[in-house]
Amino acid sequence: MDYKQALVGLLGEERVSTNLTMLEHHSHDESYHTPHLPDVVVFPQTAEEVSQIMKLANEKRIAVTPFGMGTSLEGHAIPYAGGISMDFSLMNQVLQVRPKDFLVRVQPGVTRTQLNKELKKHGLFFSVDPGADATLGGMAATNASGTTSVRYGVMRDQVRDLEVVTADGRIIRTGSMTAKSSSGYHLTGLFVGSEGTLGVFTELTLRVYGIPEATTAARASFPSVQDAVDTVVDILGAGIQVARIELVDERSIQQVNLYKETSYPEAPTLFIEFHGSEQGLAYDIDFAQNIADGHGCTQFLFETDSKARLQLWDARHNLAYAFLHKSPGKKLMVTDVCLPISELAGAVVDARQAIDRAGLDGAIAGHVGDGNYHAILMIDLNDPEEVARAEEVNAHLVEYALSRGGTCTGEHGVGVGKIKYQRKEHGEALDVMQAMKHVLDPNGILNPGKIFGK
Amino acid sequence: MDYKQALVGLLGEERVSTNLTMLEHHSHDESYHTPHLPDVVVFPQTAEEVSQIMKLANEKRIAVTPFGMGTSLEGHAIPYAGGISMDFSLMNQVLQVRPKDFLVRVQPGVTRTQLNKELKKHGLFFSVDPGADATLGGMAATNASGTTSVRYGVMRDQVRDLEVVTADGRIIRTGSMTAKSSSGYHLTGLFVGSEGTLGVFTELTLRVYGIPEATTAARASFPSVQDAVDTVVDILGAGIQVARIELVDERSIQQVNLYKETSYPEAPTLFIEFHGSEQGLAYDIDFAQNIADGHGCTQFLFETDSKARLQLWDARHNLAYAFLHKSPGKKLMVTDVCLPISELAGAVVDARQAIDRAGLDGAIAGHVGDGNYHAILMIDLNDPEEVARAEEVNAHLVEYALSRGGTCTGEHGVGVGKIKYQRKEHGEALDVMQAMKHVLDPNGILNPGKIFGK
Repeated sequence: MDYKQALVGLLGEERVSTNLTMLEHHSHDESYHTPHLPDVVVFPQTAEEVSQIMKLANEKRIAVTPFGMGTSLEGHAIPYAGGISMDFSLMNQVLQVRPKDFLVRVQPGVTRTQLNKELKKHGLFFSVDPGADATLGGMAATNASGTTSVRYGVMRDQVRDLEVVTADGRIIRTGSMTAKSSSGYHLTGLFVGSEGTLGVFTELTLRVYGIPEATTAARASFPSVQDAVDTVVDILGAGIQVARIELVDERSIQQVNLYKETSYPEAPTLFIEFHGSEQGLAYDIDFAQNIADGHGCTQFLFETDSKARLQLWDARHNLAYAFLHKSPGKKLMVTDVCLPISELAGAVVDARQAIDRAGLDGAIAGHVGDGNYHAILMIDLNDPEEVARAEEVNAHLVEYALSRGGTCTGEHGVGVGKIKYQRKEHGEALDVMQAMKHVLDPNGILNPGKIFGK
Repeated sequence: MDYKQALVGLLGEERVSTNLTMLEHHSHDESYHTPHLPDVVVFPQTAEEVSQIMKLANEKRIAVTPFGMGTSLEGHAIPYAGGISMDFSLMNQVLQVRPKDFLVRVQPGVTRTQLNKELKKHGLFFSVDPGADATLGGMAATNASGTTSVRYGVMRDQVRDLEVVTADGRIIRTGSMTAKSSSGYHLTGLFVGSEGTLGVFTELTLRVYGIPEATTAARASFPSVQDAVDTVVDILGAGIQVARIELVDERSIQQVNLYKETSYPEAPTLFIEFHGSEQGLAYDIDFAQNIADGHGCTQFLFETDSKARLQLWDARHNLAYAFLHKSPGKKLMVTDVCLPISELAGAVVDARQAIDRAGLDGAIAGHVGDGNYHAILMIDLNDPEEVARAEEVNAHLVEYALSRGGTCTGEHGVGVGKIKYQRKEHGEALDVMQAMKHVLDPNGILNPGKIFGK
């Protein structure tokens, strides 16, 4: 029997699709990577169903690629080997909120904004904010982070427990509901960031936080990128609990001014957000401003009212749009290296020079508390020569980072785009990773072609 | 050639010992677990030497048990299969401090107090404080934590990169110097807590923090354990950044009063430490006191001066001594379960009842922000019946925790003492862990008999 027929036997006609529009929707993510159609899309509703599908796929050697919202940026969700695209949109329940434990149990298809809407009723919020409204399963699969990780940590820091279906259909739990454990190997941390190559997530237990009493936003301009980064180092060293601290370079602010007809100081700029109590924040901001002044800060503004805060951060929010507006028809290629903070200023300045040298343009924005920055390059996908130049810039930024103790991807993951840097970054540790992949997925059916290549 | 002769060939006579006193020193840890002699103790000085030793041991099928300071509490450092005890006391250099990156590179034999002495020169400190002056290699091997993890996290949260020698002698690096990465599998997190069963650490890159401007200690008494725990939940929910928050139960305070001739209120007591700026702390303490009052707090004292702080925490520090003093000749058996915080109060009350029922005595102290508590039982190791009763209590506490989403060990690790609970806690995930062990150590030479048993 054809395996698609067997899938219909498991799930029924209505949850197994070979409709071309449906296949096309599952053929791409938000990146510039080449789409590829799956052979079939399935919509499981329970871990037991996922287990049955995995057993079938493992027996028949059919590739399985999990699919959340398709917001990945390195081709993770693209089923290059065809086979099954496993869509989690029907597993989208918030199963349990445990306010006293600061925990929530969710199905993998729940999105970040959906979760926060539910948590708000309890005075809680989920901290990881990668920008896109991704699913929590997808965010765990790529170890997503974003603007808030400087304070609250990355996705891996929030995941307490995973229910995982392995390639052979076993349903395992990797952790517990506790804040810490020294029992057995840390499988939770291993599965987080494994990009669907070690198992499929069917439930997540996540850490959540109390909504802070007050939030204040600030914007500060500096003579140089180095001054801005030095300010960040001193703020972190003083133990001031910034919730977000973002760097935008001079050229990027210029473009926002052109696009929005604004007159922001065209200088390296920090966008900061503070979470805390009202009284505590007043002190924190004062302290941070003193530090910034010591590094030549030319303008320091802050706002507590939520609307005014948005306006203060406007240039940060409009970054990508400002460049897209300038280059109609072009697509975004987003780089994602991360370095030790002491190397970040040099890396950002070097990145801008590399972009200029290549005759390209784009924004540079950094999660500067983490040492992570993105160059958002505008490229014409129909111009292979321009794509090649952008890829050269990307490769140059990765080389720069790796030679200074950095990583080729701070938060987007490997997918297919960063495979070529894995050996350079990990050396013989890559063989250890591949041995683990092989022992958990001997037939290579779990998201084949990702992280390690073919 | 005898493998011990080959070891002498590698390291020279002076760094290979079969002296009985030396073997005995490496035959035990600080726990009640039965000692066992290694056949030989080696003192490597470089990763390259460790690699040579591992290649030899792997070829000859000789067990290798890493040894730091021998402060483990579940028999981790005891070489039950004989063979080689690998002592890291000659690999005890702080290799590099990177103040701007809040990072330090150390060899595995560096102890926690040695590191903090070095870091102080840079205005930095290392956060994990398990009590004992353990080596950092040992602390990483057990994923140690202690009183400060409520704010700064556990050992796994501090380790950015490990240099690991595998069973076959490969020298790999598991991470990078960056604050985050989504590149490849999270091997760092997997090796941390692996208790010497997956590889031997030869270098660690650790996260460090700026020394806070001010520290304040507080002590608060409550009508019940539940009131104390509810206070903790509200403090955490409000986002107040407590650095330590410890619970001690009524019986334990009574014993301190008897031992020290003090008159602390004999009630469930919270010991709290706040780190921050002077102004911020004044506000935090006020806020915390208001929360405590709302839960019936009968006495709330705080001190900022360092000597007065010590005195305020005196009852917490003297806990174990107070019970040892009462029971001369007895030894400590320390339990270590961890639960979701909502289950902690019930667990602590139940633990005291179980200890009473068993006709035993001992302190109960909890890292209450983590849901982790210890019953420190006084037992006569020459009285098998008393040892059996203590082990029954331990088993009861583990059962209680596991049935409520907890773990059998919050911070001490599995060693040999928690092997019997691994299947119950991890289910089929234990098979996944064993598969990983087998792929990395096919000959079973790395700390055999730990975590999984024989």
